[in-house]
Amino acid sequence: MGAGNQQGRSDALGHYVAGFVDGEGSFHVAVQRNPSARWKWQVIPEFHVSQNDGNQHVLELIKQTLGCGYIKPNHRNSKDRTYVLVVRDRTDLATKVVPFFRAYELKTTKRADYERFGQVVEMMMEGQHLNPNGLREILKIAFQMNQAGARRRMSLDAILADLEPSETVRRTLTQVG
Amino acid sequence: MGAGNQQGRSDALGHYVAGFVDGEGSFHVAVQRNPSARWKWQVIPEFHVSQNDGNQHVLELIKQTLGCGYIKPNHRNSKDRTYVLVVRDRTDLATKVVPFFRAYELKTTKRADYERFGQVVEMMMEGQHLNPNGLREILKIAFQMNQAGARRRMSLDAILADLEPSETVRRTLTQVG
Repeated sequence: MGAGNQQGRSDALGHYVAGFVDGEGSFHVAVQRNPSARWKWQVIPEFHVSQNDGNQHVLELIKQTLGCGYIKPNHRNSKDRTYVLVVRDRTDLATKVVPFFRAYELKTTKRADYERFGQVVEMMMEGQHLNPNGLREILKIAFQMNQAGARRRMSLDAILADLEPSETVRRTLTQVG
Repeated sequence: MGAGNQQGRSDALGHYVAGFVDGEGSFHVAVQRNPSARWKWQVIPEFHVSQNDGNQHVLELIKQTLGCGYIKPNHRNSKDRTYVLVVRDRTDLATKVVPFFRAYELKTTKRADYERFGQVVEMMMEGQHLNPNGLREILKIAFQMNQAGARRRMSLDAILADLEPSETVRRTLTQVG
């Protein structure tokens, strides 16, 4: 197969994956309270695609096309037979997932989530989540995603009000001061 | 834009649409009792893709890429804000939809539904649904689709047992005999 054909084949797959993910994929930033995190709250960007039993080969194809991620059963209850492709590794998100969908563009309203997701990943690669101003900014962006946080358990304001230095950070601040 | 670029662009769209439809599309053969149909039962192949409010532009793009179909609100209840692209025209199905997904292949288990759908459309283009043997064959194929007819209200056997010539057919048969 010539280089041109290979490029054509990988382009075909890229566009297919963009279409599939536009329907079935999800860009999400989980927000979790974690007492050992620097500011008690942790942000975890995650890309995933789920599919019913029998279609793991398509998740495998997407995994290969993106060059990252892992597939696991998503069996939340005994009736759930779906599988999910997950990418949580921050470097993979920054160097593979985000650039991929810049090359193969999403066309639904999911694209706005992807854009915000890309911002969050970039800010975290710069370590901005480690300082309270950066973390606040990231939380605000995260809460604009996925129908403006309609499915979140806590409000943005409640989380922002709850940000506080962990024991370790407090100790360090005391030592510095 | 050169012809090569145009081809590249339309190919990109084709693969995108295949990926999107593999997740969100549906190939279905409705089976309805209709006293005025030749054998009292009617088979209606339908291709559709639905999307939530805000993504009608993607349905429009798919409609343009396929070159057929129409978009309508799919508001089955007051909460339902989805829209649906529908292709029911048999000639459009035979000359546009079925060949499209031969060129831009589906990769999920939906592909098996598509293959059966293509068979049904072809048999109907040949008029096989107009004779009882052909209609029986079509019904059998239709019942293998979409999780083997799990969501059908009547069983295949019950429908096959209920096939009978309509008034018009009976009159014609009497005249011929």
